[in-house]
Amino acid sequence: MTLDALIQRLRDFADARDWNPDHTPKNLVMALAGETGELTALFQWLTPDQSRQAMGDPHLRERVLDEIADVLLYLTRLADVLGVDLLAAANAKIDRNELRFPARQA
Amino acid sequence: MTLDALIQRLRDFADARDWNPDHTPKNLVMALAGETGELTALFQWLTPDQSRQAMGDPHLRERVLDEIADVLLYLTRLADVLGVDLLAAANAKIDRNELRFPARQA
Amino acid sequence: MTLDALIQRLRDFADARDWNPDHTPKNLVMALAGETGELTALFQWLTPDQSRQAMGDPHLRERVLDEIADVLLYLTRLADVLGVDLLAAANAKIDRNELRFPARQA
Amino acid sequence: MTLDALIQRLRDFADARDWNPDHTPKNLVMALAGETGELTALFQWLTPDQSRQAMGDPHLRERVLDEIADVLLYLTRLADVLGVDLLAAANAKIDRNELRFPARQA
Repeated sequence: MTLDALIQRLRDFADARDWNPDHTPKNLVMALAGETGELTALFQWLTPDQSRQAMGDPHLRERVLDEIADVLLYLTRLADVLGVDLLAAANAKIDRNELRFPARQA
Repeated sequence: MTLDALIQRLRDFADARDWNPDHTPKNLVMALAGETGELTALFQWLTPDQSRQAMGDPHLRERVLDEIADVLLYLTRLADVLGVDLLAAANAKIDRNELRFPARQA
Repeated sequence: MTLDALIQRLRDFADARDWNPDHTPKNLVMALAGETGELTALFQWLTPDQSRQAMGDPHLRERVLDEIADVLLYLTRLADVLGVDLLAAANAKIDRNELRFPARQA
Repeated sequence: MTLDALIQRLRDFADARDWNPDHTPKNLVMALAGETGELTALFQWLTPDQSRQAMGDPHLRERVLDEIADVLLYLTRLADVLGVDLLAAANAKIDRNELRFPARQA
């Protein structure tokens, strides 16, 4: 399974439900913000150490998987609607970050 | 370029800067929320129709690419630290959504 | 009812439940982000015009009231824990905004 | 200074700049999400203990005050546009929370 296959699956999903008129970038970015908020809430009372063990709790694990998936789904859909190549954008950003944050090691 | 290559590149990036102690799931989910907020802000005063044309404005396009990339970087890093297979989680969620939202078309 | 009374009520509420150890600024800002995400989700599929009529729908009205309240509760609690005077900070920001964004009218 | 005075000041501010057409609930909730994201980012790499000392750093203090103010400004403006009495909504929510989370102490 690749990211390209996910993009296509989400396109087909929206087409089959006539959801394209609702899938404006403005609406999708709000959906992304909503799902990111739900994901954040799952970690809000955990200490940093507890957060490292989050996936060891079966109930929490299920909710984390669900919310992380939702964030990726809306991010992927948003990028597709905007015509953005997600992986290319991410790699270009790391290129810039390598200049901003030089590595300590040689 | 694949998502797996991006995961590895981010791992190497954090290793080379000794950032792993800061990369707790709690901290990373906050970073994800921060970047999602910045992305949301780019669309806040646009109408839905204007948001469809966002990438036609060179200055806005650059900022959208930058923020979308940041969201993917932190989401990818968060998933890696939690041991989550992003694409598998996303596909499992679409499987569930197909039951929740039956397609209108045959 | 004043904002000061709300601050005191939230303090008493946390004291009576031994919640102060969990109410670090870091945790409270995450809770604020989570509630803001839930509030955002209520408006994500509405057009701007529909959003103006949101309170006319009894079910949506109830959810909006609930989420707006949660955002204010966590914002108030966060400010109290940080020792921030919310109204003074807001007014100082408007003072700065008046310089940044001069009024068009005389 | 009261919250009512802040509401009025923001109304006058928007009127004097002809900003009311842009101040739909949908747009304002996005602005609120954006500012909450910026506030979250200020705390993302701090430990919970460090977050309790955030206001002791003059530079960070200034940024926290600025972002907390922005969150309150957009929340206040959103509530006003929706016709929501913020303090009444917050108190009604605490009433409900008292039933959901009984106090441990007598």
